[in-house]
Amino acid sequence: MAATTEVRECSIARTLDLVGEKWTLLAVREIMLGNRKFEEITRYTGAPRDILTTRLRKLEARGLLDRVEYQVRPKRHEYQLTELGWSLAPVVTILRAWGDAHLSGPDGPPLSFEHDCGSVLTPVVCCDACGRPLRPKTVRRLPAGE
Amino acid sequence: MAATTEVRECSIARTLDLVGEKWTLLAVREIMLGNRKFEEITRYTGAPRDILTTRLRKLEARGLLDRVEYQVRPKRHEYQLTELGWSLAPVVTILRAWGDAHLSGPDGPPLSFEHDCGSVLTPVVCCDACGRPLRPKTVRRLPAGE
Repeated sequence: MAATTEVRECSIARTLDLVGEKWTLLAVREIMLGNRKFEEITRYTGAPRDILTTRLRKLEARGLLDRVEYQVRPKRHEYQLTELGWSLAPVVTILRAWGDAHLSGPDGPPLSFEHDCGSVLTPVVCCDACGRPLRPKTVRRLPAGE
Repeated sequence: MAATTEVRECSIARTLDLVGEKWTLLAVREIMLGNRKFEEITRYTGAPRDILTTRLRKLEARGLLDRVEYQVRPKRHEYQLTELGWSLAPVVTILRAWGDAHLSGPDGPPLSFEHDCGSVLTPVVCCDACGRPLRPKTVRRLPAGE
């Protein structure tokens, strides 16, 4: 007898289905860091070339990347994030923050960033309405339709 | 000739190596929603049982989950997130927010949450120092060692 499943409709699952695969987000990271050429992306991510090609095509098909010609002879392309692609910046930022906090070795985080307020960036997830950082037990799930 | 690789040391890659696999984060989501029993986690995530078992063991081995006996006869266990496991809440929250914003159908986001300020939660990533939301081009990478 097959087990009953009641798989939850979920935005996390949908997001992971689109960009959750490791090389995908690392490619997005690399393009955000300014490395937009296929050779650069494969070098700095370590992604196998054939897998990277597939992942970049999926991102292009889903509107997160544009493949832009930057040289005519010989033809050369680079990858540019669309506005939708750039909207992944908070996802990448929070994954980095978690790794910085919990998986750094004695050398500390591999990369550091500065916010334009002048501070070294420590990103934190806040409530957009009140601006306060989200803390455990300050968020409750609303019943469907509420 | 093998391609030269200079794979970037990166907290995003480290985080994805630990929790980036789809069923892992969906299991964490389900436990955060209060479904701590193996049967519940497999039902609501749709994860294959053998894969889920492997993923939960890895999370336990890495200190993100505790397997806690809640009944003696017959023995029954449930999974509880450790403090480290709960520290993934911002990651889960931002993945959900991105899916809510960009992958919702006509019915809108599948789940809604309320912050204790009284507003329906829209999470946003902010600079912990100044409290402002991160915007494009407000963050620059620091040279190594700065």
